[in-house]
Amino acid sequence: MSKKYVYKFGAGHADGSSDMKLLLGGKGANLAEMSNLGIPVPPGFTISTEVCTDFFANNGQYRNEVKDQVNEGMAHIEAIMKKKFGDATNPLLVSVRSGAPASMPGMMDTVLNLGLNDQTVLGIIEQSGNERFGWDSYRRFVQMYGDVVLGMKPESKEEEDPFEIIIDRVKKERGVKLDTELTADELKTLVELFKKEIKRRTGKDFPTDPWEQLWGAISAVFGSWNNPRAITYRNLNKIPPDWGTAVNVQSMVFGNMGDDCATGVAFTRDPATGKKVFYGEYLVNAQGEDVVAGIRTPQPINKNTKQDSSQVSLEELMPQAYAQLEDIYKKLEAHYKDMQDIEFTIQEGRLWMLQTRTGKRTAAAAVRIAVEMVGEGLIDQETAIMRVEPEQLDQLLHPMFDPEAKKDVVARGLPASPGAASGRIVFHADDAEEWAAKGEKVILVRIETSPEDIGGMAVAQGILTQRGGMTSHAAVVARGMGICCVAGCGELEINYKSKTMKSPKATFKEGDWISLDGSKGDVISGKVPTIDPELSGNFGKLMAWADEVRKLNVRTNADTPHDAEVARKFGAEGIGLCRTEHMFFEGDRIKAVREMILSDNEEGRRKALEKLLPYQRDDFYGIFKAMRDLPVTVRTLDPPLHEFLPHDDENQQEMATEMGITLEDVKAKVEALHEFNPMLGHRGCRLGITYPEITEMQARAIMEAACALSKEGVKVFPEIMIPLVGSKAELANQKQVVVKTAEKVQEEMGIQVDYMVGTMIEIPRAALTANEIAEEAEFFSFGTNDLTQMTFGFSRDDAGKFLKDYEQKGILKEDPFQTLDQNGVGQLVEMGIQKGRSTRPKLKVGICGEHGGDPKSVGFCHRVGMNYVSCSPFRVPIARLAAAQEVLREKNK
Amino acid sequence: MSKKYVYKFGAGHADGSSDMKLLLGGKGANLAEMSNLGIPVPPGFTISTEVCTDFFANNGQYRNEVKDQVNEGMAHIEAIMKKKFGDATNPLLVSVRSGAPASMPGMMDTVLNLGLNDQTVLGIIEQSGNERFGWDSYRRFVQMYGDVVLGMKPESKEEEDPFEIIIDRVKKERGVKLDTELTADELKTLVELFKKEIKRRTGKDFPTDPWEQLWGAISAVFGSWNNPRAITYRNLNKIPPDWGTAVNVQSMVFGNMGDDCATGVAFTRDPATGKKVFYGEYLVNAQGEDVVAGIRTPQPINKNTKQDSSQVSLEELMPQAYAQLEDIYKKLEAHYKDMQDIEFTIQEGRLWMLQTRTGKRTAAAAVRIAVEMVGEGLIDQETAIMRVEPEQLDQLLHPMFDPEAKKDVVARGLPASPGAASGRIVFHADDAEEWAAKGEKVILVRIETSPEDIGGMAVAQGILTQRGGMTSHAAVVARGMGICCVAGCGELEINYKSKTMKSPKATFKEGDWISLDGSKGDVISGKVPTIDPELSGNFGKLMAWADEVRKLNVRTNADTPHDAEVARKFGAEGIGLCRTEHMFFEGDRIKAVREMILSDNEEGRRKALEKLLPYQRDDFYGIFKAMRDLPVTVRTLDPPLHEFLPHDDENQQEMATEMGITLEDVKAKVEALHEFNPMLGHRGCRLGITYPEITEMQARAIMEAACALSKEGVKVFPEIMIPLVGSKAELANQKQVVVKTAEKVQEEMGIQVDYMVGTMIEIPRAALTANEIAEEAEFFSFGTNDLTQMTFGFSRDDAGKFLKDYEQKGILKEDPFQTLDQNGVGQLVEMGIQKGRSTRPKLKVGICGEHGGDPKSVGFCHRVGMNYVSCSPFRVPIARLAAAQEVLREKNK
Repeated sequence: MSKKYVYKFGAGHADGSSDMKLLLGGKGANLAEMSNLGIPVPPGFTISTEVCTDFFANNGQYRNEVKDQVNEGMAHIEAIMKKKFGDATNPLLVSVRSGAPASMPGMMDTVLNLGLNDQTVLGIIEQSGNERFGWDSYRRFVQMYGDVVLGMKPESKEEEDPFEIIIDRVKKERGVKLDTELTADELKTLVELFKKEIKRRTGKDFPTDPWEQLWGAISAVFGSWNNPRAITYRNLNKIPPDWGTAVNVQSMVFGNMGDDCATGVAFTRDPATGKKVFYGEYLVNAQGEDVVAGIRTPQPINKNTKQDSSQVSLEELMPQAYAQLEDIYKKLEAHYKDMQDIEFTIQEGRLWMLQTRTGKRTAAAAVRIAVEMVGEGLIDQETAIMRVEPEQLDQLLHPMFDPEAKKDVVARGLPASPGAASGRIVFHADDAEEWAAKGEKVILVRIETSPEDIGGMAVAQGILTQRGGMTSHAAVVARGMGICCVAGCGELEINYKSKTMKSPKATFKEGDWISLDGSKGDVISGKVPTIDPELSGNFGKLMAWADEVRKLNVRTNADTPHDAEVARKFGAEGIGLCRTEHMFFEGDRIKAVREMILSDNEEGRRKALEKLLPYQRDDFYGIFKAMRDLPVTVRTLDPPLHEFLPHDDENQQEMATEMGITLEDVKAKVEALHEFNPMLGHRGCRLGITYPEITEMQARAIMEAACALSKEGVKVFPEIMIPLVGSKAELANQKQVVVKTAEKVQEEMGIQVDYMVGTMIEIPRAALTANEIAEEAEFFSFGTNDLTQMTFGFSRDDAGKFLKDYEQKGILKEDPFQTLDQNGVGQLVEMGIQKGRSTRPKLKVGICGEHGGDPKSVGFCHRVGMNYVSCSPFRVPIARLAAAQEVLREKNK
Repeated sequence: MSKKYVYKFGAGHADGSSDMKLLLGGKGANLAEMSNLGIPVPPGFTISTEVCTDFFANNGQYRNEVKDQVNEGMAHIEAIMKKKFGDATNPLLVSVRSGAPASMPGMMDTVLNLGLNDQTVLGIIEQSGNERFGWDSYRRFVQMYGDVVLGMKPESKEEEDPFEIIIDRVKKERGVKLDTELTADELKTLVELFKKEIKRRTGKDFPTDPWEQLWGAISAVFGSWNNPRAITYRNLNKIPPDWGTAVNVQSMVFGNMGDDCATGVAFTRDPATGKKVFYGEYLVNAQGEDVVAGIRTPQPINKNTKQDSSQVSLEELMPQAYAQLEDIYKKLEAHYKDMQDIEFTIQEGRLWMLQTRTGKRTAAAAVRIAVEMVGEGLIDQETAIMRVEPEQLDQLLHPMFDPEAKKDVVARGLPASPGAASGRIVFHADDAEEWAAKGEKVILVRIETSPEDIGGMAVAQGILTQRGGMTSHAAVVARGMGICCVAGCGELEINYKSKTMKSPKATFKEGDWISLDGSKGDVISGKVPTIDPELSGNFGKLMAWADEVRKLNVRTNADTPHDAEVARKFGAEGIGLCRTEHMFFEGDRIKAVREMILSDNEEGRRKALEKLLPYQRDDFYGIFKAMRDLPVTVRTLDPPLHEFLPHDDENQQEMATEMGITLEDVKAKVEALHEFNPMLGHRGCRLGITYPEITEMQARAIMEAACALSKEGVKVFPEIMIPLVGSKAELANQKQVVVKTAEKVQEEMGIQVDYMVGTMIEIPRAALTANEIAEEAEFFSFGTNDLTQMTFGFSRDDAGKFLKDYEQKGILKEDPFQTLDQNGVGQLVEMGIQKGRSTRPKLKVGICGEHGGDPKSVGFCHRVGMNYVSCSPFRVPIARLAAAQEVLREKNK
């Protein structure tokens, strides 16, 4: 027997099945599966992907076996459909479609209505009793075949499609506007004109022999595997070029042959809410594309989903076909064990299933369906965990605008921090604080934000900036705080002097109400009502299952007791990053900080630091208490000192007055602290090495708070983390300051507290010399934000300018600041862990960059053996789910 | 027989030899060696380093064998010296000195004159007939023993040495100023007072038993191996703590017992010039320290080196001792096969050698001695190569100030670029160009320099800046140009408005003459005559020998035909880095560059680039011609565009006027191009990706120049290098632009040129993904300046602020911008090479960072298998020698 190249399906049987996707493509495998389930699909056959490979290897020639098997396939369709290919009176028409192993939507070609010619069209008209239908099908076929097989593409980018030019001309001549207004005669004319144009441009007649048409279409579909847009898509999605595509040849069925015909789409459950209800739409006497086109209003499929009594459901109109459809959808859902998105056609009362696939759904629906299916015994908990995209959860964790509400979108920026918020416009952080203190809800609108704005940002409902990307200061801080933010809204013109904000559509002034959709990037005029998130119920169940499975701990990045509380609610198991400097800006503290910076001797600095100590101690007290029983990693001072000084004249003058010095003194200090590349400058542990008294004060504040709580019986586990370490000697220097202080405080307070001293690994050199650093470090926390900056040599603040070009030109597939670059930065992370543990086998390792909340990156963190990830409070559930999924992926590999 | 712990020497025989340094320490091994050579050294013995290890392991206890062997050793000394230890009439005195396997100068302790007490001092006085000598020796011994063995240190940092307090008191009472004015009686009083103070502070009497003294001193010297300053020194110099020190006990000899006594130091050749002449100084009736102290004027040793007839040479004064000394120095030099630095003492007409060691010498002397010793058959060429410190050569390659000239140093900065120069002060680059055009020699004095100053820097004799470190713009550019530079001279106050420069010592104005010593960092008032370097003769011979040995090629970093010619003279074998942007600032070009930057569309940019093309082509033509027959690596545009725009109002206005636009337009563009961290911003290949037309113009200029020269029969090998690549896709994008242009130019010009396209590896990610990048790159050149910046997270422009602290606190041993950090950055370099060659086994690999001229880094480059290093022209000989030495080190390992 010769090798099998062609796989038949239809009439309750198929040669293939759904697990043969590599050979039959996704479409072919699913059509086979439906056939095997006894579901009526239009009969047909799949030419395997092996033939595609052969096709390219042999210059477009086919083996004789392939030809023979295609002939058999056609005979199989004819037998089931009781029609004959090319027959003048009872002609069989087929579709020829691509179908690759991986989904490549719209990338390759399709030909419908194949088999029509001047003779068979008459047979179709005869059979359907519908002349217009016949000619319309014919002209569509010639047009599609001309385009796909005969290369009738526009001759330049400026030119229109050659067939559309003809259609437009004819419509103009006849004075009609819509294609649907063309009569049968006019459509017949179009067929003639199309053929002439083909002859003119290709020098060849349009093929009238259906078999010639068939092979032409098959070859064109195989050939489309290597068209430029398919190649680009494959490269982008890493689909191997040698997979090839299969070709599906299938009998045509028609939903538009009369009133006993219909076509529709349906979901086996509500894709918006997840409710277990059969949900779909159909149109009588229509083609699939008509449902989508929106010219006629589709009707509901079952009577329970009718919105008013004027609607006619399929259940009522065609009870028999409906009953059959109901059986089928139940069978499909039970078989695939997931919500299905199905397409069907009813031709002359007979139901044909055209497609079934897993249906897309909202986050809420995904969670509900997954959990309910476990309840129904359809799937197990592990499958349910895999059914929800972690990233999608973000939709559920923030307030969102009422989907029913009207929204007047006046501008669009980057969806920098999810959520929805309404408030009154203020342009200065100080104003935000003032207004908020009076009970006003405010949206802080800035050209860009800086650390000085932190107080105003914290009290705002939302933040809107004109400049800056997804990782700008505003975006990062807002995500950390769980406040909604639209960033980089370049359409806006913000004027601080006149306190106005102009969008191309409207002008707003201080005090005007606007709303921000941080999940979409929309800026909306006026107030929009919001809906609060629901964390218990199905969501709670799913998360509990995920927690049972996952091995990674999930901590949060939090700088305040409030954030810590929020994160606990979201399931955080500790704090992975508490940034002490965020506390430096509030109220009187900034004065003490500035006093310290202005001192030019240790004594003066110590005096200023003494003023800061009680504030810091209180902060840590609050945070440790909020995170009782769980570990809290506190990072010592990180940003360069100039960030704490004002940079504009007005604020500098204010500071000078406050501190009793001259404006020149302030300017001189600012100038002295100026750096060309602050990212690579005097910050992190470098500050603590120059000014050990700062580290000492912070260590004291941490330990005094920890000891005080311990005395109250509250369990605290402080982990003191030294930032920006690049060598063992740096860490040793700072650790010695911390340990000495900690020992002293414990002695003074007469109590011992379990504490650790560790380091960020955020400088490439730290990863490279992690074995040495681990001699000092009791834990590692990968600061992948900075590590990414330095490994790529990209400044987050500046890269926006060229990363757009990079994405457009396909140089970068993913923003490395959002998803960890496993290929490059990931090597350093792996190396760091492996080298660190070569010195200290039980070294605790985590991550505290933005990547800690990115599902793909969380998967990576699990695989490389981290102990925990830490992310902003609102991403904790995402990380929990992603961590569980990675365990399951590993298990099922 | 019991194990040997004590090694005797003296009287023409020794138990040890010079190859037993690990066991006997350096000093003990050399004393043994001299004894074996029959050279008279004061007899003694060495207690081995094994005893030191035992000492620490056993709480300061000694085995009985050690005690027995020390007794034998003392008997050995007594026998040779015909004196008796502790004898009241003919007492033997000894010294007890440390001597570790590695030199640790001044780190450990020494006790002299041991064996003195109230009885033996009388014996000494009797023997020497010199009462003052006896009591002075005794009081020195009590003081030294008290300090070293009995812990008589100051009680706090503020307090003086307790013995010095007593001496001061006594001098005050007696009304004398110098120690030498104290009489024998007064010295006797001091001995009494010292002993009382010891009793008061330690509660114990000063030991009178010589054996007790001896063991106390031995234990103190062993103990000093673990004193804090020795530990710090060991850590810094990576000396293993378990090596331990040996202890040398040796008979005292005295050069100050009368007029038949003398002491002196000598070099076997002139250490300044290398001339083969015995060269040294001595003093009659003096101790070694008197020669150094400078109270009496030492006399020349041999009569040929007398400067006037008033001098009395040792040759004339003590002809017999001199003849013996002459025999000995010749024997030592012949034995050690290197110039020796020797110390001797003549006691009562008898010559004793106290020390011989390899003598320090100037670069000129090092070269001359090495080459002449080969001529004398003393050493072979390979040894000669190893005898010269590559770094030292720098002294020989630049003009230097006449050492005889008087120099009024008014300030001191960093020795940023070696050489010496005099010129008239100008404060602006434009003025420098103007004055230079009129034939004036100028020194450009700036607070700091920027790329706009390049024209003025190129014509200046020297550059002086107030701010910036060894790797500031001024320093890097100056070194590249071989122009002398003193940078970061913080003592100066430079005022552009008043055109003045103030140092703490003087004020200068525009036009005043100053001189700079770029090798020392000196700023000197007025003109100082200079001496030119000599590259032939001995230097040329040595370099030729090195070239035969080395395997690394040495190229140069050069941006102009002039630099290329200079580098060829220094032996460069091609250009490893030609920075195209340095050409952008000259004359009319900057206008075209700015026109390009101001254009907001491709067409405008192309128009401006067309104006630049002929300039660039001419530049490359000149450089390729100067480097005929050798490869030239040209880097495409690297710096961010804002570097080409003026940043102060005055120049911005000038530019606006020139370009016919408003000042606001200029300011807006400057603002738009502003970056927070330009080092990590829109530069390097990122520019070429955004603006491919720039790369295209540069590729065209390179290839047009190369094709034109090829037609003239000049051999050219252009290597086009894409900077700042972090991923294969970036390089692929730019390579495609280059190759397409290159093919087009070759076709247009009808000639083929061998060219390559490669990349800098200067971003950590490039090293990590070098296997992928090598799929596109035909060569790699490690840009270790930027690689160091990103791997450490140090901005070169800013790190000066904290790197000082790092050096002070011992956190960084070497400036990683000068010497490649092999431990961290080096890992990336090795990884890059190994991964690159895993893809492309014959991949050509070089380095073009500043490290290419640093001897240690050159050694590393050889070891990791690079093909070449590239450095500034003046460092080419240094790299050639360093490369040869590394081969020899490898061979002799």
